[in-house]
Amino acid sequence: MKQIAILGSTGSIGRNTLRVVESLNGAFSIAALGAGSNVELLAEQTARHRPRVVSVSDEECADKLRYELKTRAFTARPKIGIGVEGLSEVATCDGAEIVIGAVVGALGLLPTYRALEAGRRVALANKETLVIAGELMTRAAETSGAELLPVDSEHNALHQCLRGERRHEVKRLILTASGGPFRTASREEIEEATPAQALKHPTWRMGDKITIDSATLMNKGLEVIEARWLFGFSADEINIVVHPQSVVHSMIELIDGSIIAQMGVTDMRHAIQYALTYPARHPMDLPPLDLTACNHLEFYTPDTERFPCMTLAYEALRAGGTMPAVLNAANEVAVAAFLGSRIPFGKIPSLIRAACAAHTPRPVTDLDSVLAADRWARDWVSAQITPSQAASRESGAVSQ
Amino acid sequence: MKQIAILGSTGSIGRNTLRVVESLNGAFSIAALGAGSNVELLAEQTARHRPRVVSVSDEECADKLRYELKTRAFTARPKIGIGVEGLSEVATCDGAEIVIGAVVGALGLLPTYRALEAGRRVALANKETLVIAGELMTRAAETSGAELLPVDSEHNALHQCLRGERRHEVKRLILTASGGPFRTASREEIEEATPAQALKHPTWRMGDKITIDSATLMNKGLEVIEARWLFGFSADEINIVVHPQSVVHSMIELIDGSIIAQMGVTDMRHAIQYALTYPARHPMDLPPLDLTACNHLEFYTPDTERFPCMTLAYEALRAGGTMPAVLNAANEVAVAAFLGSRIPFGKIPSLIRAACAAHTPRPVTDLDSVLAADRWARDWVSAQITPSQAASRESGAVSQ
Repeated sequence: MKQIAILGSTGSIGRNTLRVVESLNGAFSIAALGAGSNVELLAEQTARHRPRVVSVSDEECADKLRYELKTRAFTARPKIGIGVEGLSEVATCDGAEIVIGAVVGALGLLPTYRALEAGRRVALANKETLVIAGELMTRAAETSGAELLPVDSEHNALHQCLRGERRHEVKRLILTASGGPFRTASREEIEEATPAQALKHPTWRMGDKITIDSATLMNKGLEVIEARWLFGFSADEINIVVHPQSVVHSMIELIDGSIIAQMGVTDMRHAIQYALTYPARHPMDLPPLDLTACNHLEFYTPDTERFPCMTLAYEALRAGGTMPAVLNAANEVAVAAFLGSRIPFGKIPSLIRAACAAHTPRPVTDLDSVLAADRWARDWVSAQITPSQAASRESGAVSQ
Repeated sequence: MKQIAILGSTGSIGRNTLRVVESLNGAFSIAALGAGSNVELLAEQTARHRPRVVSVSDEECADKLRYELKTRAFTARPKIGIGVEGLSEVATCDGAEIVIGAVVGALGLLPTYRALEAGRRVALANKETLVIAGELMTRAAETSGAELLPVDSEHNALHQCLRGERRHEVKRLILTASGGPFRTASREEIEEATPAQALKHPTWRMGDKITIDSATLMNKGLEVIEARWLFGFSADEINIVVHPQSVVHSMIELIDGSIIAQMGVTDMRHAIQYALTYPARHPMDLPPLDLTACNHLEFYTPDTERFPCMTLAYEALRAGGTMPAVLNAANEVAVAAFLGSRIPFGKIPSLIRAACAAHTPRPVTDLDSVLAADRWARDWVSAQITPSQAASRESGAVSQ
């Protein structure tokens, strides 16, 4: 029985990980659960899965958790950690072989780094980890021999496509993008889009931030950066293709011209289970993909004129060092400002572009160096946004 | 430098194999070439590639070849074999590690069998080999440790999809079918189709026999039988999906619901090179597949009402033993009769069905047992066709 630690157990990835663990009938057990302030759900999860270590955002939540566990007549007493130190204890909990990295935002960085240093397999759902600190993370993984497995559908698809192939025989990675709600909109329509329009994702319902990233196509730009670190391909070797049906989750092209694609239904449990059981595969109780029902698969070249965020991400990746951290932080602040109706949609890319132009990338030597760049970018972009500069404080918190 | 023997060097697979060998700049050399009666081309190939062993259909062709080589001032004297024995010498030629099995028809059986017995990697383009004698061939390969690699695009695609996967984690194979010229035709239109209509393949130009198989969808039925032997899946684990664009060459479904697909441009050199260089991949001078240009990929459930040949093939595979040999031979005779305007298109499946119904399958003990079933079916179907019974004599010859 393999033991799992979950960073972000009360979020959607965390909850679905627990569903997958239950469906795998005893092949996995839960060693540790890290959450934020959703204490009630954490108490329920703790009572059910009996982790030895748990973590919450602060002392008040810890007290509440003790109380909740008592009311559930739960006699075992898991160790209760707090904040980022608590999450790091979850991430390095004795006996856990696999760590699910599903804490949202920069808070996930340190615990994930600790897990990789400790040689744990990390199933990663936190985008920021690799966008901001991919170099550090992969270096830590190489040193300790830790495996880094992607839990989002695109990178998980790439991982599956790459299974039988050798790195030097793979020519490029092809990330598919749904194209978002503005796929067929004009440049003018996009620039003046309202939050309500931008939040209407054609294919699925996600959190607000990621839905806006999906509308600007910055989500694909961030995924290009993630793919660079996960698989060791350069910016030139990673392409984006718009595929509105989202049936093909991503593809690779081999040097002989062959293309290998992974397809499937869209359910995050697939990628979660894959990352848990890899290299083995196990049956899932998901409906099979019926290709004859999702007919007419389309593929388009992405339009970098209407969606400049993709280009900004490529440029940040090429600039290297702390630049992707600046890109990511500037994007977060700009998106929050857009959602708060403080800037128009068209201002998101121009704020990011300006922040990157104002930043001289420095080498990534440790987590502090990227966190400093992250803070700088948040402050810088906030300062451009009038009248409110609250955006920088809205980001970077553990959400669940 | 690896040495190659080609069975059927003057046919399209043989000629393309030589192109691939030349493009691979000295990684491979030609040890032996087997052809039929296209002596002039064989002489040219011999002068260029300097095989040690060659083979032609008969003594007359051998004399002609000696003369042709002399007129080319070719001083080396390759050993010249004749007929099926000559082809077997080509297949087992000392030093050849890879044998290309591209002789059309039953004539390819024995030489291919000899190559597998001798432990050679066989890159197989001859459909009949596995349809008629899959059990024998795979048994011989298992005993000697020979590898059997498919050269046609569908099975080659399956081979590529299976590279990174474990047999027990693969749920099913999904062969794609273009659907042929009658994909959207009514049952009546199909039954009364003329040879001219049936020969109008929507996607590419092939030989007449295979084009008709493509119109009846018997080609997919035969491919199901081939897939069974190449990959060890049962009839229930092999499905057909109609995909008119032929961009996805085939797919596999894993037990966790994931689908892995192989796509590419349609050029037989891809599969040939793959089979030569496997497990390595090498660059090719083919145009890359532009997914954005071949937009709108469609997938349909095949219609077994209008295309009963698929069902007949599944039934023959399930019946086992000599039944697939009877299916194949009955189909050949029926197709020849249709091409000779002696039977209507709709009569092809009914003749095959009747032949299979009249046959009691016997275990496949050796090549003679399948060849006897093959002969029986040819005679039986020919006897049903009036006035001419010439069909049985038109088939089974080496063609290139």
